[in-house]
Amino acid sequence: MPRDANPLFLSADTMALATDLYELTMAAGYYHAGLNEPATFEMFVRKLPPNRSYLLVAGLEQVVHYLRHVRFSGKAVDYLRAQPVFANVGDEFFDYLRAFRFTGDLHAMPEGTVAFAGEALVRVTAPLIEAQLVETYLLATVNFQTLVATKASRVVAAAQGRAVVDFGTRRAHGPQAGYAAARAAYIGGCVGTSNVLAGYELGIPISGTQAHSWVMAFDTEEHAFQAYYDVFPDSTVLLLDTYDSIAATHKAIAFGPSLRGVRLDSGDLAAQSRRVRKILDAAGLHDTRIFASSDLNEYRIDALLKKGAKLDAFGVGTDLVTSRDAPALAGVYKLVELQRDGEPAPCVKQSAAKKTYPGRKQVRRLSDKRGRYRRDVICLDHEDCGGEALLVPVLRRGKLVGELPSLEAIQQRAGEALALLPPRFRRFKGAEQYPVSISPGLEALRTQAVGHVKRAKA
Amino acid sequence: MPRDANPLFLSADTMALATDLYELTMAAGYYHAGLNEPATFEMFVRKLPPNRSYLLVAGLEQVVHYLRHVRFSGKAVDYLRAQPVFANVGDEFFDYLRAFRFTGDLHAMPEGTVAFAGEALVRVTAPLIEAQLVETYLLATVNFQTLVATKASRVVAAAQGRAVVDFGTRRAHGPQAGYAAARAAYIGGCVGTSNVLAGYELGIPISGTQAHSWVMAFDTEEHAFQAYYDVFPDSTVLLLDTYDSIAATHKAIAFGPSLRGVRLDSGDLAAQSRRVRKILDAAGLHDTRIFASSDLNEYRIDALLKKGAKLDAFGVGTDLVTSRDAPALAGVYKLVELQRDGEPAPCVKQSAAKKTYPGRKQVRRLSDKRGRYRRDVICLDHEDCGGEALLVPVLRRGKLVGELPSLEAIQQRAGEALALLPPRFRRFKGAEQYPVSISPGLEALRTQAVGHVKRAKA
Repeated sequence: MPRDANPLFLSADTMALATDLYELTMAAGYYHAGLNEPATFEMFVRKLPPNRSYLLVAGLEQVVHYLRHVRFSGKAVDYLRAQPVFANVGDEFFDYLRAFRFTGDLHAMPEGTVAFAGEALVRVTAPLIEAQLVETYLLATVNFQTLVATKASRVVAAAQGRAVVDFGTRRAHGPQAGYAAARAAYIGGCVGTSNVLAGYELGIPISGTQAHSWVMAFDTEEHAFQAYYDVFPDSTVLLLDTYDSIAATHKAIAFGPSLRGVRLDSGDLAAQSRRVRKILDAAGLHDTRIFASSDLNEYRIDALLKKGAKLDAFGVGTDLVTSRDAPALAGVYKLVELQRDGEPAPCVKQSAAKKTYPGRKQVRRLSDKRGRYRRDVICLDHEDCGGEALLVPVLRRGKLVGELPSLEAIQQRAGEALALLPPRFRRFKGAEQYPVSISPGLEALRTQAVGHVKRAKA
Repeated sequence: MPRDANPLFLSADTMALATDLYELTMAAGYYHAGLNEPATFEMFVRKLPPNRSYLLVAGLEQVVHYLRHVRFSGKAVDYLRAQPVFANVGDEFFDYLRAFRFTGDLHAMPEGTVAFAGEALVRVTAPLIEAQLVETYLLATVNFQTLVATKASRVVAAAQGRAVVDFGTRRAHGPQAGYAAARAAYIGGCVGTSNVLAGYELGIPISGTQAHSWVMAFDTEEHAFQAYYDVFPDSTVLLLDTYDSIAATHKAIAFGPSLRGVRLDSGDLAAQSRRVRKILDAAGLHDTRIFASSDLNEYRIDALLKKGAKLDAFGVGTDLVTSRDAPALAGVYKLVELQRDGEPAPCVKQSAAKKTYPGRKQVRRLSDKRGRYRRDVICLDHEDCGGEALLVPVLRRGKLVGELPSLEAIQQRAGEALALLPPRFRRFKGAEQYPVSISPGLEALRTQAVGHVKRAKA
């Protein structure tokens, strides 16, 4: 490999290799065993992460792109073939990989849907090898974006209508994670991001002004403030805490009411913000907004507002893009149905601690007359359980069923969905557990499938 | 933008935009103010993350690639220019961006170096605008890879010589984070990864066999095991816990001593592993290894081994690639020196809680006669403090000073470095704080610089 090829930037050709090896050994094994009947896998989360009472689904657009475009290049196939593990695998399998396309069906909850533990977020039905191969990439994508969209919605709720902007790229899990986090944070209700690429590629409003280094680069703080204002008179937000926030505020008022804002980035934000607000107001700068940053999250924002902080907007970084208090979403992708002898047969694993439900499923949401969510039922795909079906067709035989929504539409959908979830189920501290039940048809199928398993393993 | 352009895969052209907007507003501001003298920024971590007593540095190779190749494409510049925030910025700045190259010097601790709080991991000296612009990408890259390499080294230590393999891609913060984590985990001492792309691009040994879905896809567990063995006779690791691990072990012994291994993925791994080991040994399968996975980390591996688990290797996923108990590294990038009137002048910020040291610095490590690390001194670049200088030149005027080490060499360096750190400073629980002091020259410079700041802000 040339050393100059930046391996952190994958091309479409190498997407196919962004996966776990066992997807490929299983693929070869299925191929060799002649096992490639239609299979259904479902992605779900067994248990919500700590401090979470719901999930806000995100990442589907990137999954769809992957399913539509994943290909094994000749070089990739040559690499695989040269691995010792594949020594006994015949040519035909590698020819199969070269021609590989995802030709299956994808059902999913649209991005911006509110979901709960046990509910399928994504359902794939395809020939077994295809359905298996796409597991890792699908999980990595939906797990992360859902994690951050969910976190963002909590931070936005804590801000009670004040703007929240994603400032997290530098602390994200690499530059690409920073970019994906900006997308997910926007879905979760952030009004913008500091990530320029997210603006360029996705049209998210971008935001940012100056760092402490700016102030330090000039001989005096006044000169630093003036130099910024000279170039950005309509959007200047002065960073106050390089030396002394209150002294800096007195310098800031010299710019008059056209000064867009000031930012506090350290110390006691509540106390400082009240003093800064008074100084600004006394000078007639009533419209100059006070921004806060500095290790914020939903808990700190809530505490600041309870202490009467005079803050108009929040830049949230590390905690948002890493979902720091719950930094992983343990989504799993499980085989639930496989055609045997021309008939779909339910599949179920039976380990002690991990109860799973077989069969191709649907999630149905029952609402009250005003549209507010009352409860969900996980049922068989075609079982009549009332309510709204949350899994909708996205790909049919590998082709898009309809146009994907814009990011703005996804953000709006998320906001509407959260508003329909009664507050007791979405409080960011001490929320109640939203009721999700299993349909009679699904319970009956599980009983039947477990009986079948007992016979199989005997 | 065409919907089919997968925005999660960045091209070299768009690397430049994978940054915070404020780097670009500051760049425009500096340009307008005519402020582009040589500046030095240092990246360091103020405080080690929770449960960490050292850092294992990683990510430098990707930073070097970025610095050598970052460019603003015409499209990128057009996008920026169209942003309302840049309305008052003249053409010359955008011409500057079009021609932008990183022409500065980079000093850094080589990947695989052991580092501590307060120590510069990376030092950039370049014209102010260049040095500022590269901040976000540099931080996002070094923060994440260092985070995971450090975590990996702890997990590897807990395994006491048993193999640890990265299984985390599906839970990483997106597919690219999974790939970068595989690299960092290898630096931290993992013997391999499940991530195929990390094998393909980086030559890391890849590993993986089968999931529960494999076992479930066949009518009986025996058929599933046999079908796998047929294709992979030299590398079969049978997954035991789809239905009943002990019953599955009795099926596994049918393959005889050539069976490479078995894997336990749920339940009481210590108790099961002892029973499984007995059954394997009784059947003469003494060389068949027992692999464990299932939400492992350094604490669980340690507890398993203390309970007498008969485990030969560990697949570690979520906790490793997200560094779950400390999921962010708060590396910062601070202006420490700026040339004024032809002379380098130290820069220092003076917020209450965040004490920083001005000036271009070096980190020196003092060792005993056997090479074991005794203490570090943070000193001025050319101050004579003895010991080994940890920051070495990597780029000079934008060009590589020497060849970068191979990943294998980095892994080896990391292992040697950790071995030289006395065990009391690297125990993964209850480690002592390694001594790091500030040199007299640096303390004197700080006193002088703070005095200067007091005059500046007055």
